[in-house]
Amino acid sequence: LAPFSLTVGYCLKRCQFGGGDRNVMRKAKKRIGVAIGEHILDLSVVSHLFIGEHLKANRHVFLEDSLNHFMALGSKAWKEARARIQEMLDQNSPLIQDDENLSNKALVKQSDAIMHLPAHIGDYTDFYSSIYHATNLGTMFRGKDNALMPNWKYIPVGYHGRSSSVVVSGTGIHRPNGQMRPKDEEPPTFGPCKLMDFELETAFFVGKASKLGTPIPMQEAEEHIFGMVLMNDWSARDIQKWEYVPLGPFLAKNLGTTISPWIVTMDALKPFLVNDFPQDPKPFPYLQQPSPYSFNISLEVAIQPEGSNEKTVVSRSNARYLYWTMKQQLVHHTITGCNVNPGDLMASGTISGPVTVRVKAIVLDLESVPGRFCLP
Amino acid sequence: LAPFSLTVGYCLKRCQFGGGDRNVMRKAKKRIGVAIGEHILDLSVVSHLFIGEHLKANRHVFLEDSLNHFMALGSKAWKEARARIQEMLDQNSPLIQDDENLSNKALVKQSDAIMHLPAHIGDYTDFYSSIYHATNLGTMFRGKDNALMPNWKYIPVGYHGRSSSVVVSGTGIHRPNGQMRPKDEEPPTFGPCKLMDFELETAFFVGKASKLGTPIPMQEAEEHIFGMVLMNDWSARDIQKWEYVPLGPFLAKNLGTTISPWIVTMDALKPFLVNDFPQDPKPFPYLQQPSPYSFNISLEVAIQPEGSNEKTVVSRSNARYLYWTMKQQLVHHTITGCNVNPGDLMASGTISGPVTVRVKAIVLDLESVPGRFCLP
Ligand SMILES: [Ca+2]
Ligand SMILES: [Ca+2]
Ligand SMILES: [Mg+2]
Ligand SMILES: [Mg+2]
Ligand code: NI
Repeated sequence: LAPFSLTVGYCLKRCQFGGGDRNVMRKAKKRIGVAIGEHILDLSVVSHLFIGEHLKANRHVFLEDSLNHFMALGSKAWKEARARIQEMLDQNSPLIQDDENLSNKALVKQSDAIMHLPAHIGDYTDFYSSIYHATNLGTMFRGKDNALMPNWKYIPVGYHGRSSSVVVSGTGIHRPNGQMRPKDEEPPTFGPCKLMDFELETAFFVGKASKLGTPIPMQEAEEHIFGMVLMNDWSARDIQKWEYVPLGPFLAKNLGTTISPWIVTMDALKPFLVNDFPQDPKPFPYLQQPSPYSFNISLEVAIQPEGSNEKTVVSRSNARYLYWTMKQQLVHHTITGCNVNPGDLMASGTISGPVTVRVKAIVLDLESVPGRFCLP
Repeated sequence: LAPFSLTVGYCLKRCQFGGGDRNVMRKAKKRIGVAIGEHILDLSVVSHLFIGEHLKANRHVFLEDSLNHFMALGSKAWKEARARIQEMLDQNSPLIQDDENLSNKALVKQSDAIMHLPAHIGDYTDFYSSIYHATNLGTMFRGKDNALMPNWKYIPVGYHGRSSSVVVSGTGIHRPNGQMRPKDEEPPTFGPCKLMDFELETAFFVGKASKLGTPIPMQEAEEHIFGMVLMNDWSARDIQKWEYVPLGPFLAKNLGTTISPWIVTMDALKPFLVNDFPQDPKPFPYLQQPSPYSFNISLEVAIQPEGSNEKTVVSRSNARYLYWTMKQQLVHHTITGCNVNPGDLMASGTISGPVTVRVKAIVLDLESVPGRFCLP
């Protein structure tokens, strides 16, 4: 992601709890923070400074160990928090700068922090909203003329994922064992995955909750979209191919899903708004938007083998190439009455662009890789 | 379910908090209870009586507003709790009977209780484990000779469901709107679901947690299976048909899933153990069981229209007809390293028997039904 002025994340501070002593660190509390350059502003230390109308009575949200309660407050509270944090961080503001004791406690070096998942994820949904990706895959399986499924341009196609295995960037992922059928005419085999893949995605966290039985209308979608993270939807392709008909991907995806610890709030992303991808046919009325909701976010995947100093870029794309927007995904998700909760995670699906710039093979050949690998 | 001696559920007592006054009820706390005849034994009131080695230091689990913490303790604690509760409820035991004050507080009439979800459900998975159901559906779609997918007898096929919309029996479910395509050669339409279906299932709650990256071996499966509930997986068939290729059921299922508030623990179900369904081919070693884990549980679905006193039985079956057992489902679910948490819910899939005894049409024609309906 491009460097945005304001992000909301979540950290455990090493420095304040004994400079790296493992036992002390384990006891240290998770807390909410905002990234500012090489530092993190610890909001639990400055919670008393939130004195605006939407936060004054809700300051406890900054003392929680996840962002769920802050997410639940809605966009007025989010805007108020953002404005107040910008005031605090202003070089000329006396709020923190003039209080040496406070600023020592409130500002932590990012390199001294251990990052965690920013929210408790109740439900995780994975969409399939890149037309280039869907067309590429479809062409591979069904030829160019039938590449897109008949429902694809009517429905933001998606499926329910596994929330327990969503982890923060840097968490080790184990190479999975599973069933696969390398040769279609022979019985399946069991063993370590040989076709491990990554899926470059963005995802958004749900803000306000909605009620079971009450769909979210398009004009209220913004209240329920808190901010974005980067995501890698690790995928075991050989396991997926054997298991996924007719009920969709299951074990091939629940071995682990990696997201960034920092959430970039939608307000911070406003400067990067661009026109939506043209939609033809026109979607059903419940999916029509009053104004664009696509974002110019450059995306890149690089692989850096353990022990090497060199990264190799294997994929480049941009979030603006998504056919369905996050608002459309959310509104569709609730049209039958499904309720959403603060901290629910909704992913874009693999984001491909009009030009494929994957420099290396899509699928990692794991025959030559040891049992464990990490997201760079 | 047949009437078992011991169940563990969860209730809010009306009687003790003002005899039905709505405002008082809203403030009343949810608490954990055990069904005994027409009564509920409120475990929060008798928590001091759990003095055995596995519960003495963990009595706080009986003061929680969900069963998750009790589930997390594992089978030794569950067995100890069951034995102690049987002691308490013994007619000749002085533990509760001799203390009029305590027994007045501890025993609540079921008719005075409001039932809630017994646990916070982190993740919900729906399997597809009835061979008769899979064969019936498959025959309809692909003919008798290709009825079962090639993976069906190797894999306990399943998919991730939506946990936020799992509700307790009696909760109103709204008739959903959605996209459907009644005629294959015409564009899709949008409107109220016209083919609402039920799916009669059993489900189990996960007990102990497991770690990401560490599959649960068969010999440890029992530690992770707490108990069973009944389930109705409401399904909008017209919406499902249009949306489900290639990533599986999504909106057609997340409009609501109903479970019973009472969980029957696996210990209470032991007397109903029967031989497993014969499996051919022999499953992979990780799926092989040392002893049977199928249960003789008669199942029945009846429909009682609003305003009517008459129930019509529309389906009869038995849990013993499941091809894959709960242990096999759980072990398979974690074979790629997926972690499970206390309170995760795993459903069997529609349970059909060798003889179809559905008395009425499978699918409810909703043209003539008002906007809302409840599980009887
Ligand atoms: Ca994906
Ligand atoms: Ca089902
Ligand atoms: Mg994943
Ligand atoms: Mg359901
Ligand atoms: Ni949860």
